[in-house]
Amino acid sequence: MSAARTVLTTRVGIVGGGPAGLMLSHLLARAGIESVVVEKRDKDAIHATHRAGILEAGTVRMLTEEGVDGRVLTEGHEHEGTVLRFRGHSHRIDFQELVGESVWLYPQNEVFWDLAAARERDGGDVRWSVTDTEVLDLESDTPRIRFTDADGTPVEIRCEVLVGADGSQSICRRAIPREARTDHFIEYPFAWFGILTEAPPSAPELIYANSDHGFALISQRSDTVQRMYFQCDPDEDVEAWDDERIWDELQRRVDGPDGFRLERGPIFDKTVLKFRSYVCEPLRHGNLFLVGDAGHTVPPTGAKGLNLAFCDVRVLAPALVAALRDGDDSGLAAYSATALERVWKAQNFSYWATNLMHVRRDENPFEQKRRYGEFAAVTGSVHGSAYFAESYTGWPDA
Amino acid sequence: MSAARTVLTTRVGIVGGGPAGLMLSHLLARAGIESVVVEKRDKDAIHATHRAGILEAGTVRMLTEEGVDGRVLTEGHEHEGTVLRFRGHSHRIDFQELVGESVWLYPQNEVFWDLAAARERDGGDVRWSVTDTEVLDLESDTPRIRFTDADGTPVEIRCEVLVGADGSQSICRRAIPREARTDHFIEYPFAWFGILTEAPPSAPELIYANSDHGFALISQRSDTVQRMYFQCDPDEDVEAWDDERIWDELQRRVDGPDGFRLERGPIFDKTVLKFRSYVCEPLRHGNLFLVGDAGHTVPPTGAKGLNLAFCDVRVLAPALVAALRDGDDSGLAAYSATALERVWKAQNFSYWATNLMHVRRDENPFEQKRRYGEFAAVTGSVHGSAYFAESYTGWPDA
Repeated sequence: MSAARTVLTTRVGIVGGGPAGLMLSHLLARAGIESVVVEKRDKDAIHATHRAGILEAGTVRMLTEEGVDGRVLTEGHEHEGTVLRFRGHSHRIDFQELVGESVWLYPQNEVFWDLAAARERDGGDVRWSVTDTEVLDLESDTPRIRFTDADGTPVEIRCEVLVGADGSQSICRRAIPREARTDHFIEYPFAWFGILTEAPPSAPELIYANSDHGFALISQRSDTVQRMYFQCDPDEDVEAWDDERIWDELQRRVDGPDGFRLERGPIFDKTVLKFRSYVCEPLRHGNLFLVGDAGHTVPPTGAKGLNLAFCDVRVLAPALVAALRDGDDSGLAAYSATALERVWKAQNFSYWATNLMHVRRDENPFEQKRRYGEFAAVTGSVHGSAYFAESYTGWPDA
Repeated sequence: MSAARTVLTTRVGIVGGGPAGLMLSHLLARAGIESVVVEKRDKDAIHATHRAGILEAGTVRMLTEEGVDGRVLTEGHEHEGTVLRFRGHSHRIDFQELVGESVWLYPQNEVFWDLAAARERDGGDVRWSVTDTEVLDLESDTPRIRFTDADGTPVEIRCEVLVGADGSQSICRRAIPREARTDHFIEYPFAWFGILTEAPPSAPELIYANSDHGFALISQRSDTVQRMYFQCDPDEDVEAWDDERIWDELQRRVDGPDGFRLERGPIFDKTVLKFRSYVCEPLRHGNLFLVGDAGHTVPPTGAKGLNLAFCDVRVLAPALVAALRDGDDSGLAAYSATALERVWKAQNFSYWATNLMHVRRDENPFEQKRRYGEFAAVTGSVHGSAYFAESYTGWPDA
């Protein structure tokens, strides 16, 4: 009935062709380690999905110094600081002055595109648009991935190590028995209403704004297209929001005595973005290793998601090379603990930034006053500002 | 039936003879402004009440540079750092190295004693052990304090300005109409179990310890007497705790791979200390001004209470002098907003430190893991450590 199953052998089987999976495959190839990447989505569809993107310096270095592409430097925008705005008062955090680093505004889907192009250029084996993916024998020396290729061929990949880089809905993570992992998570009673608009930039750098009406993030994308968000209910109906209502809502969250006005334009994309804080412990089961959203997700405040995935890859890639090329398993043995150390720092920062900037319905009014105190403490102190800047631009690798 | 009421006139009537009220009276006297302090407690009773005491550098300077007493420098202990201990791992925050400041370990009741002695030495009018205190005509130009003196004489003090320095149960604050003030507060589902023990110090500096069993604070008092606390339920019964149970509980909250052991000794004082975060806004009503605990209380984590009261006094004293000596009311007009700016920073720090170090019953396990991430972020970063050190030793005055 079914077609004969094609069997492939490779050293590392990677489930998920997003930035984390592709970057890992790329780094392994540079070290002479063969891998195959399988991805259920279509390449062009991923590229066309608008995603925000603030890249830490460490993420940018991985793209530019590891032979991927320098496009982030020419098409991305270096941001040497960001603005925190509370009660209508803006305070700029100068990353360069405080910690000597910048971040880059460069959409995640462009990061993806550069990595996909690099894999194609280098002859990497990436299977797009696969279906029915499953992972098997995680605890054995020859774990397997089964899937149906884009052309309908059933395929089995036999490998030495499996990597789950398949995002927050990870099938790899779900293949880990419940008793072998702990799921830590917290929910938030709010979400982000995101828009894309054809308008000039309202500000040269990101503005993280808190007001009594809730959070707003004024971001950019290009000279003519801008990305903005405002805190909404998780079950908000995008259709209930026409352009004028959206602009009025965004404006009242940044209103202040300085008269700051958003540059308005037609809105061509509206989405409600739900999020939570989640960590799977450990990030390894047998010969399966989780990287990025497959192992942990953060709320978007503070832009840690993609950067944290790349941090995982920075730990896992050399560990895999040591194990598969040199027979040294110590890096793999340490992977979960090493990666989780940074994960929990980033989880804390994302949680902290989220709670600092969002307002809960019916919250104790003490909380909003306390937030102003925290804003004053962070922005009124070189040490507080530097702590924020270091967390935002990314801690040095351990 | 009642004795004839004695009427006194002074410029500033101060309700509350704790450190804040006495310090204010002292500073006013140095500027030639007369005041009267009324206090319901007995002087020796206050002195005999054991109170913790970590003094910020700014508090110490007020005691030593304003002609009170230098005893804090000879009998207090300078602490150039403190220890944060999580999961049995200690990390020292070096205040001097990070921000060039120290704190002083010097009990609050000794601060009180020095101030009471200074007021007596300088001929200050302080009425101890008064009863039936009430404040009247707050909104008029001649607010009044009525009370019964220690010898039974009814007294009325007519003044130009009233100051409420009468602690968290402040009768002055309660005299402000409800519609003229906002009470901000949050409760915590835990308290501190405090002990005094005859034992040598277990450590040279304070240890703030978090463990899965909850918070503990290892503090000192002298070479032979130590002060320690551990998180308990607010309704904990002290009688249910014998010495051995207390020591075992304290020990398990500091247990760790380094084998750190507490020095045990007989416990001669046991108290359950309840707390909450509270702020009254504004800190002024008519010609009544609130300072210290009368206007705001913080949880004890981070030791901000007394220091914050002295910060209020540092703002109010010169404002009173300007108004009463030079006819310039601008300082008094700005008092509440100026003092509250620091109050909210300190409220945030105290809230943050409390939530960082205490464990809630039935809390989401994510929280304890996140705390470890926060501990790692603070202690693993010069910027994070400096931010903590600055907050703990006290922000520079605005």
